[in-house]
Amino acid sequence: MDYSQKALEMHRQWRGKLRIETPCPLESKDDLSVAYTPGVAAPCLEIAKDRELSYEYTRRGNLVAVVTDGSAVLGLGDIGPEAGMPVMEGKCALFKVFAGVDAFPLCIRSKDVDEIVHTVELLAGSFGGINLEDIAAPRCFEIEAKLKERLDIPVFHDDQHGTAVVTVSAMLNALRLTGKDLAKVYAVVNGAGAAGTACTRLLMALGLKNVVVCDRQGALRAGLPGMTSAQAELARVTNPLGKAGALADVIQGADVFMGFSAPNCVTKEMVASMAKDAIVFACANPTPEIFPQDALDAGARIAGSGRSDCANQINNVLAFPGIFRGALDVRAREINDEMKLAAARALAALIPDQELTEDHIIPSAFHPEVAPAIAAAVAQAARDTGVARI
Amino acid sequence: MDYSQKALEMHRQWRGKLRIETPCPLESKDDLSVAYTPGVAAPCLEIAKDRELSYEYTRRGNLVAVVTDGSAVLGLGDIGPEAGMPVMEGKCALFKVFAGVDAFPLCIRSKDVDEIVHTVELLAGSFGGINLEDIAAPRCFEIEAKLKERLDIPVFHDDQHGTAVVTVSAMLNALRLTGKDLAKVYAVVNGAGAAGTACTRLLMALGLKNVVVCDRQGALRAGLPGMTSAQAELARVTNPLGKAGALADVIQGADVFMGFSAPNCVTKEMVASMAKDAIVFACANPTPEIFPQDALDAGARIAGSGRSDCANQINNVLAFPGIFRGALDVRAREINDEMKLAAARALAALIPDQELTEDHIIPSAFHPEVAPAIAAAVAQAARDTGVARI
Repeated sequence: MDYSQKALEMHRQWRGKLRIETPCPLESKDDLSVAYTPGVAAPCLEIAKDRELSYEYTRRGNLVAVVTDGSAVLGLGDIGPEAGMPVMEGKCALFKVFAGVDAFPLCIRSKDVDEIVHTVELLAGSFGGINLEDIAAPRCFEIEAKLKERLDIPVFHDDQHGTAVVTVSAMLNALRLTGKDLAKVYAVVNGAGAAGTACTRLLMALGLKNVVVCDRQGALRAGLPGMTSAQAELARVTNPLGKAGALADVIQGADVFMGFSAPNCVTKEMVASMAKDAIVFACANPTPEIFPQDALDAGARIAGSGRSDCANQINNVLAFPGIFRGALDVRAREINDEMKLAAARALAALIPDQELTEDHIIPSAFHPEVAPAIAAAVAQAARDTGVARI
Repeated sequence: MDYSQKALEMHRQWRGKLRIETPCPLESKDDLSVAYTPGVAAPCLEIAKDRELSYEYTRRGNLVAVVTDGSAVLGLGDIGPEAGMPVMEGKCALFKVFAGVDAFPLCIRSKDVDEIVHTVELLAGSFGGINLEDIAAPRCFEIEAKLKERLDIPVFHDDQHGTAVVTVSAMLNALRLTGKDLAKVYAVVNGAGAAGTACTRLLMALGLKNVVVCDRQGALRAGLPGMTSAQAELARVTNPLGKAGALADVIQGADVFMGFSAPNCVTKEMVASMAKDAIVFACANPTPEIFPQDALDAGARIAGSGRSDCANQINNVLAFPGIFRGALDVRAREINDEMKLAAARALAALIPDQELTEDHIIPSAFHPEVAPAIAAAVAQAARDTGVARI
């Protein structure tokens, strides 16, 4: 189904997808005197004495900024901050509907790392968390790293970590179903952008060892000429056997393929060359590296993609609302790997053994327990790792 | 009545006064496909082709940023951006309740003019207007001037222009009641900060000629040593008779006194020295220059203040919601003097002759026609002056 026309009509009708409302009664002089002047001076003065009280007397503790420069919006590329807004508004709407988080889009007219970092830093006192969104790699890595260093609220690049959490969750269930052991599988990741890099790193944090990451120049390996610093760093920690060659070469014998790259770049022949009970997650959007049914036809046992019209949809909306809900609930200083892994495990565990099948390794986004289960797990992991403030 | 305790309790209970909601149904995969991926790509691409369409497909056209550095919050002074948030949230709540405008607070951690200007500039593509709030003079003048130059959306410093509009409106009705002529009255303004300066200038745009502005060093006049550049500019266009001296000196014989300065700095003796049928607007908050009843006791015919517990409350909430409503409705490029004066006249006209009395020169903030009447007048003035885009 083509949603374009319907989306245009609905967006025009709604005039945007966000509304700012107040729960306060403002119907009399007395109401004004409590919510505004002179009463409002009291919470102001309390916060001036102790800034932490901004979490008690303002919306800060439930408020996330969705920050973009519009440089990598969906599969549309660099369309700019104004044109990226419908996606950011949609993201904010999802935050609210799925986890009760108030989120507001900040679309920044700059592509300069330091300018973006500085802008967010100057506004951070108004928010309980920062969700970076649709910022092109490798700029997104640098922006995230600098903001994490400077802010004491969670900074989370959803295209990296949200995607990684959902993919890891799907992988946990795929391994459970096939009986494969993460520490022993051979995995190939195609695409060393935001999602591919984060997913590789999170799986390695969970025990994956034998993984090769391919990018445009083929398999990344120590010493390969012409790599960016981000690629070189990835090459340093992956590809333990030093494999060389194109994707078609290194995918041979792989137990797992994960794509975060380009449409139609994986053939049936390539899937046929993989190991028995192969797992294929083709996450390019909207057109995957290979359609799930093609992957299954070519011999894969489990296939997933980002598409809502196929089984096993690897969809960020499964992760970010619950992750921020949990982080905000304990006023976490950051969202660390332990919290992300706790989220992935909690999401995977929502499918009990008896319901786990090849075409059901990921819960529906509308499963009512998704956000609460993730939030509880993330909050606990925050406490366990000492980053919870309450 | 002391509202402090009640305000603390209510702010803690509410956890802030804003909520971000979505009007979109998000209950099924189909809903997600329209509001988010893949459907959302369609409005993104339309805006990428024509940025003006951000007004059609996003919330921009109804969205105002309430921007502060927290340096002049209420009468509390420089308490910082976090502590200023309760006031900004309250302001945003008033925007919504009184005029249906979505407003969001941006509290900036900087006191540097260029840094504040640049931050707002980088975010301006997400908003239909900018309301500057509680930024100390003279920095506020410079920030406003630079933003007006760089942005093609309305930039409005409410502490200046909102206060000026309501004061001018009250003055129009006070003159109507006393039969005095603005072009002939002698007026004294105390306080050359944001509000005093804007009010003086707007009354002059309406025909006031004989006005003296006093600041800490007494009556501002051409050649007075030690003035800031803002004071010198004001001295250049006011005080046509070159009066010198303290407030107590120059207030003698004045038809009109307007204070935007400090508590209790006007005595009954000073009011008694004014002309017959004197008009006294003492707007210092929360304690006025002189309480209205004292001014009346001393011989003034009409007295107003910022206090909600006295007659004739000069309250910004009468102006800014309707002004922005009108400006947004016609997608105005700016809010110019003609639009401000149209707002002041529309507000004054809401009190018909037969209802106009010494203690009723300003409509109640809860008068249902206030925002619609101002909005209509402002929109028409925007069209008349060629700054309306639709």
